[in-house]
Amino acid sequence: MFFQSKKLPHPVELRDPVHGYIHIEDKVILDLINSKEFQRLRRIKQLGPTSYVFPGANHTRFEHNLGVYELTRRICEIFSKQYPSTKPNDGLWNENENLVAECAALLHDIGHGPYSHTFEHLFGTNHEKIGTQIITDKSTEINQILSKVAPTFPEAVASVIAKTYPNPQVVKMISSQADADRMDYLQRDAYFTGVTYGSFDIERLLRVIRPYSGGICFTNNGMHAVEDYIVSRYQMYQQVYFHRINRSLEVVLNKLLERAKYVYKNSNLLVTPSLQKFLDNNWTLKDYLNLDDGVMETNFSIWRESGDEILADLASRYLFRKPFASCSVDQETRNLVPKLKNYIKEAGFDPNYYTALTSAFDEPYDAYKPSGKNAHSQIEIMQDDGTLIELSELSPLVKALNGTIQGSENFFFPKVMLSKNDEPQIFDPLYQEFQKYVKNGALRYQRKPTRKNNLNNQ
Amino acid sequence: MFFQSKKLPHPVELRDPVHGYIHIEDKVILDLINSKEFQRLRRIKQLGPTSYVFPGANHTRFEHNLGVYELTRRICEIFSKQYPSTKPNDGLWNENENLVAECAALLHDIGHGPYSHTFEHLFGTNHEKIGTQIITDKSTEINQILSKVAPTFPEAVASVIAKTYPNPQVVKMISSQADADRMDYLQRDAYFTGVTYGSFDIERLLRVIRPYSGGICFTNNGMHAVEDYIVSRYQMYQQVYFHRINRSLEVVLNKLLERAKYVYKNSNLLVTPSLQKFLDNNWTLKDYLNLDDGVMETNFSIWRESGDEILADLASRYLFRKPFASCSVDQETRNLVPKLKNYIKEAGFDPNYYTALTSAFDEPYDAYKPSGKNAHSQIEIMQDDGTLIELSELSPLVKALNGTIQGSENFFFPKVMLSKNDEPQIFDPLYQEFQKYVKNGALRYQRKPTRKNNLNNQ
Amino acid sequence: MFFQSKKLPHPVELRDPVHGYIHIEDKVILDLINSKEFQRLRRIKQLGPTSYVFPGANHTRFEHNLGVYELTRRICEIFSKQYPSTKPNDGLWNENENLVAECAALLHDIGHGPYSHTFEHLFGTNHEKIGTQIITDKSTEINQILSKVAPTFPEAVASVIAKTYPNPQVVKMISSQADADRMDYLQRDAYFTGVTYGSFDIERLLRVIRPYSGGICFTNNGMHAVEDYIVSRYQMYQQVYFHRINRSLEVVLNKLLERAKYVYKNSNLLVTPSLQKFLDNNWTLKDYLNLDDGVMETNFSIWRESGDEILADLASRYLFRKPFASCSVDQETRNLVPKLKNYIKEAGFDPNYYTALTSAFDEPYDAYKPSGKNAHSQIEIMQDDGTLIELSELSPLVKALNGTIQGSENFFFPKVMLSKNDEPQIFDPLYQEFQKYVKNGALRYQRKPTRKNNLNNQ
Amino acid sequence: MFFQSKKLPHPVELRDPVHGYIHIEDKVILDLINSKEFQRLRRIKQLGPTSYVFPGANHTRFEHNLGVYELTRRICEIFSKQYPSTKPNDGLWNENENLVAECAALLHDIGHGPYSHTFEHLFGTNHEKIGTQIITDKSTEINQILSKVAPTFPEAVASVIAKTYPNPQVVKMISSQADADRMDYLQRDAYFTGVTYGSFDIERLLRVIRPYSGGICFTNNGMHAVEDYIVSRYQMYQQVYFHRINRSLEVVLNKLLERAKYVYKNSNLLVTPSLQKFLDNNWTLKDYLNLDDGVMETNFSIWRESGDEILADLASRYLFRKPFASCSVDQETRNLVPKLKNYIKEAGFDPNYYTALTSAFDEPYDAYKPSGKNAHSQIEIMQDDGTLIELSELSPLVKALNGTIQGSENFFFPKVMLSKNDEPQIFDPLYQEFQKYVKNGALRYQRKPTRKNNLNNQ
Repeated sequence: MFFQSKKLPHPVELRDPVHGYIHIEDKVILDLINSKEFQRLRRIKQLGPTSYVFPGANHTRFEHNLGVYELTRRICEIFSKQYPSTKPNDGLWNENENLVAECAALLHDIGHGPYSHTFEHLFGTNHEKIGTQIITDKSTEINQILSKVAPTFPEAVASVIAKTYPNPQVVKMISSQADADRMDYLQRDAYFTGVTYGSFDIERLLRVIRPYSGGICFTNNGMHAVEDYIVSRYQMYQQVYFHRINRSLEVVLNKLLERAKYVYKNSNLLVTPSLQKFLDNNWTLKDYLNLDDGVMETNFSIWRESGDEILADLASRYLFRKPFASCSVDQETRNLVPKLKNYIKEAGFDPNYYTALTSAFDEPYDAYKPSGKNAHSQIEIMQDDGTLIELSELSPLVKALNGTIQGSENFFFPKVMLSKNDEPQIFDPLYQEFQKYVKNGALRYQRKPTRKNNLNNQ
Repeated sequence: MFFQSKKLPHPVELRDPVHGYIHIEDKVILDLINSKEFQRLRRIKQLGPTSYVFPGANHTRFEHNLGVYELTRRICEIFSKQYPSTKPNDGLWNENENLVAECAALLHDIGHGPYSHTFEHLFGTNHEKIGTQIITDKSTEINQILSKVAPTFPEAVASVIAKTYPNPQVVKMISSQADADRMDYLQRDAYFTGVTYGSFDIERLLRVIRPYSGGICFTNNGMHAVEDYIVSRYQMYQQVYFHRINRSLEVVLNKLLERAKYVYKNSNLLVTPSLQKFLDNNWTLKDYLNLDDGVMETNFSIWRESGDEILADLASRYLFRKPFASCSVDQETRNLVPKLKNYIKEAGFDPNYYTALTSAFDEPYDAYKPSGKNAHSQIEIMQDDGTLIELSELSPLVKALNGTIQGSENFFFPKVMLSKNDEPQIFDPLYQEFQKYVKNGALRYQRKPTRKNNLNNQ
Repeated sequence: MFFQSKKLPHPVELRDPVHGYIHIEDKVILDLINSKEFQRLRRIKQLGPTSYVFPGANHTRFEHNLGVYELTRRICEIFSKQYPSTKPNDGLWNENENLVAECAALLHDIGHGPYSHTFEHLFGTNHEKIGTQIITDKSTEINQILSKVAPTFPEAVASVIAKTYPNPQVVKMISSQADADRMDYLQRDAYFTGVTYGSFDIERLLRVIRPYSGGICFTNNGMHAVEDYIVSRYQMYQQVYFHRINRSLEVVLNKLLERAKYVYKNSNLLVTPSLQKFLDNNWTLKDYLNLDDGVMETNFSIWRESGDEILADLASRYLFRKPFASCSVDQETRNLVPKLKNYIKEAGFDPNYYTALTSAFDEPYDAYKPSGKNAHSQIEIMQDDGTLIELSELSPLVKALNGTIQGSENFFFPKVMLSKNDEPQIFDPLYQEFQKYVKNGALRYQRKPTRKNNLNNQ
Repeated sequence: MFFQSKKLPHPVELRDPVHGYIHIEDKVILDLINSKEFQRLRRIKQLGPTSYVFPGANHTRFEHNLGVYELTRRICEIFSKQYPSTKPNDGLWNENENLVAECAALLHDIGHGPYSHTFEHLFGTNHEKIGTQIITDKSTEINQILSKVAPTFPEAVASVIAKTYPNPQVVKMISSQADADRMDYLQRDAYFTGVTYGSFDIERLLRVIRPYSGGICFTNNGMHAVEDYIVSRYQMYQQVYFHRINRSLEVVLNKLLERAKYVYKNSNLLVTPSLQKFLDNNWTLKDYLNLDDGVMETNFSIWRESGDEILADLASRYLFRKPFASCSVDQETRNLVPKLKNYIKEAGFDPNYYTALTSAFDEPYDAYKPSGKNAHSQIEIMQDDGTLIELSELSPLVKALNGTIQGSENFFFPKVMLSKNDEPQIFDPLYQEFQKYVKNGALRYQRKPTRKNNLNNQ
């Protein structure tokens, strides 16, 4: 079953610094963008606390969703012109799929709320399920707009996002190792952070992408463009997504919300109405849609005046960018963590709220791993004779990268523990003891005997 | 009296997509950036509702202030190297002024709050006075940081921003027709909106700027670079700052806050603590510093559930981007406005909250006007023999632009008044009557007799 | 009569730094590019001696012609999709015109030779006539390729370039005030010179251009993009095309060729075979096609060893970038030129070869003049109701620019005339006398009496 | 011994699209640029025949040398400010070295002639030796300019280029794995070819480069910027420098010059004066300096009319871009080459001039190989405690790249051998036989028996 939309009398064009313009030709697309549920994405940052490290990174999920839509629209346009299907199962593109692909692209992240990762962890929400609900629940403007196309259209769109839509070409366009989603966020995050490493030749990628019976792949004259895209992705992970201070502020946020739950349960806490429903564990979709970054930060600001010292302090730390310090931890040194927590406790900090041990594997990004659970979404290069070869078999560079992305484990703690005694403080001896275990940003064992030897030798 | 700062052991560099990097070498600069009052600027958008028109324009006053600091730092560096003063009053640059110039640049907008223009209008605040207070009031972190340099340093920094500092070179570097402030915001607004017209050759400008006894000017080999900067400014005003939908959403915001004041005064209204102080007209600096865009929008979101229909509707219009429609008005057609207001009232809208007549002159930007109140800040080009010539005397292009920037007056009203009857509505006859007065986006008189004649002739 | 071409089995894409890629889908286009006559354009610089001022400006007519083709191809693609003609004389675009438009775009400059302007002046050639000949003469590869499409196709292509083709839309796409030719060269010249002023938003321009019965125009939502294009053009003229040193080296080139003609006629001169035919005034199309920048410079290099001192000197000046000095001249001061020539003669230079009086009006570029001979190619903006308004009526900025582009008249002479006596030379007194007439780059009268008065008054 | 130069009264700035501006503050630098020997570099393309593949790549050795100078100047400026030597052998930078470093940078490629690699191979010249000669021979303008600084200055500059200068910091700045030379050409070649892969963050690189006792290295906060530079280099080799058609036209050029030598020796050949000296094997420095790309191409053009068919054909192939076809060859398939040559001979081509077997190792570029002959120029990263670690030990990505750059061996032959019989030709059966050995761009054995087996198995 295929879906058609009314065309707009005049195309609408939104200025976008990454793609130039977002072109809107279908009435349903414009209506979706103008819906309450979509407009709300303007108030949710794409990269959460990353703007604390890269000040330009204030871009929102609103723009990213527009960008994914635009790339999908361009791919559909190219596919419809260059690879039009002429008979069933010829492995080419049926332009009747354009509308469902574009709507799914636009709405693929519609379920996200503020600080999704952390919020979901603490309040048991799930942005994918909520996304499906926003699309299929009759109460939403989005559902009503989609239903005007056809009663079954909302379900079709939702199934693309859930990867259960029958046509794998449509699914892979939105969700695979080189999909419109990743292409947009890498370019966009690079643009707004100012990190030049993230750029790659998107015009070229759009020229060499093509459909095949199992999904989408790339023609072999585009191998180097795909390789460049993979390298850019690797660099963005190393430079931006896994940045230590970024991760540190995620920890602060996590502890702050944890403490807020504790204080709310055990005493009084002033909270704005919609967030209160989540603390009461009694929320509806409408409450979820009332949340955004500003609501969360407004609560943090209010909590600075709550009587609870830990909550007030953590709120200030998040609002005014006072990240925890951190050091890397490995298999061997992980055993030292309890000892360090003791020092931190002695220095007056509750270790439950002022320390954390996390690894970058917790991050919501998945790197290029052709094997394992993402195997089905690996990148294929089509040879002249139509056979497909997986990218890392052709590119030694990509092969090398597959082995190099590794999560690093980090221990987070109050920065004051690293303070030097140029401004003497009461806990100085404690700090000095603590600092013996941290060198060059890594946790390490003290090697007293070796030192003694060294001193003797001098 | 000159001021010195401790240098950082290692310079700190912040990534900035507009200038590449923000270089920080002085401890006082880093401390100021880390202060609560400065970090708060991260939550105040540089262009208020403009991101509703240009989705990328989410950049904040935080980044802009960093950018103005960075440009000032570069100008000071170039001046110190190329135009070092060797004796008093030689019209050259004294590098002892670097620190006060850089701090003033960093803090020049520190007094801004959310939606400054609208907010000030309704609550009687003044961002310039508050800025001075933040710098000179002993309660702030910023004052304490500045005071460590010297007890008189806060006053010195404040006087640069207030344009009363004795050295005109320092004052003009921050506030004149071609100052670091304008250079940064034009580039930055162009980058984040994606409007390419706003770009100009800043590297060249920094090469041709120079000090003279009366302030700063440009060497004559840089005339074309300055000309290009003026053209870019003109284009940014036309394309971005005066954009109709931008202005329309300012109107919605204004009406929304006006209604909130009314409802608060006459019945119950749930308001977050800090904003409540302003509605009570009983606020302190601390309350002001607790405000930001997110706090305002959180209140708007809460007010959607207030019993007051007008307030709830205006809040939704602002949060979900439902701008008023508008048409231009001139001397002659202004008399029609009362008649139109009547139609609007008949259609069920309170004209006090659903109509407005405003002109772009109300906007907080001042274009290049060499005469009048800004005469003292005009742009001078230094000739080979050291004489100064005002820019528009040399550039016919700039001369032409001086006369072309004109405010346009606009009448704003609910968009439904322009609806066509493809989806018939109860007020259709009324709408049709209304629409006879609006053509091609302008208010106009009906010319019934002429029409009759035309028909007769056919 | 319409023309069709065989499609290539796979599109060919050439990397172009200005437009990203040049897309080639028709076999005839690829064959034309591969022809001898077209490949020869690789050896003819687009801007002649301009690379002596902007070292990056080594781009050739080859790339420019590809660029004009690519822009024309994109315009045709957009027109065919958005403005398809459905009946004769509906003022819309007939996609059967695509091929003739694209071929004409690709070949519009095919008649250019090395240093066209200067060469034509001295040898009586005419690049437009030669262009027609290359397209229509059965001896050329280009003619043979075009003839395969249809026997009348070469004439059709030539008539587009000669502006006699019946469809004004096709003609104006290649030749008007905002055509693919100008759009490409402004962007390209800006890219390779590095002059940022020249850039404008070409993607936007391509979105707002549209056909109408009389040719091409722009929709009114694109007014600012067109305005920006006109400003860029003004700036490129001021900064690049009219650059004094650029013009000075054109003068050297002119004098050099003039002297070569004289020497060849009056004594022996070693010349490469093809250029010899021009000195003999006995050349054929084949000889013309053998000329390029390298051939000319090879002759200059050989002439450095000719016995004739003036020729050898002028050749060295051109090859090793020794431009003449210059000063501006106006109505009043023009009378001083003979006197200055006398000084120059006394200093040992033949004024026929070492001085020149030229104006920028001689330059082969025509600025935007809506009246006069170019009136038919003015830029029109289409209003909502379909009426056309000429651009300068809508844009005060463009109106202002129309009056500001003025040719400047310059007097060129050997730089040594301006030498200062820090390294004393035999002609010093003469130089000092000469220099009294030149101040700040302008010719001026000595005003001894006035000076005396001034002194008396003091 | 240190060298000083007179400063210019006003700095001169040349516009450069890659670095923005080239800043010239020393009189000796300006004089060197204005010398005959340096101006000549304007007529020698940086990448030889590469513009046949990437049409924008017309940039010359003139601009590249300016760029290397500018980067060196910036590095010297940063070193002088941030790492000033205060006592001998402290491993820091002595700003008295600035001038010799800058002059060496400017002149490091001064000995290059047209198509250096091919020309040297055939005429026994050596651009490094000739470069030294240009700098040290009293007959040149360059020598005279350098000698004005000090009589020993020419030798000092030459010794930097020859890597025998005593200070390794100066030597490594110009010649090492991450020197100003490579940084410029990668950026420049990427800009003019339009290949975006070549770009890297040069501003960042300049911030993290630093001197140490053994040369130059990078600080550890710059590791990712260096990594990115290495990746860019890899991509430029794969995409541009080793491009098959690029290499094919080098083969045509080589054969063309070889044939010219043969024809000149055995019969009459019209040749321009300076090139004739090389064919006579009787050339001087002056003759060498008279050569450039245009002179070579002028001769090729003349030779198209020589009686020798092979020479005329090869000249046309080069001038009008008719590359040979090619296929890759490996250890196993190399044995087939003689058989293929036979087919080619039967088809009427002299295999000596119409075939070639070359490998990319012949190319004049050396990739990053930390071991072997370039070990001394490897890239070092300085740790917090001052120790140096070689880059590939820190970066798995660089480690991977070291093993991946491999020369590919190719067999070149006339394209007609691959023609399909849609336009039947006399040699068709021969072509078909030939084509059985070439598949997907690679030479291969015919495997008839295997095929039969396959069929049997089915």
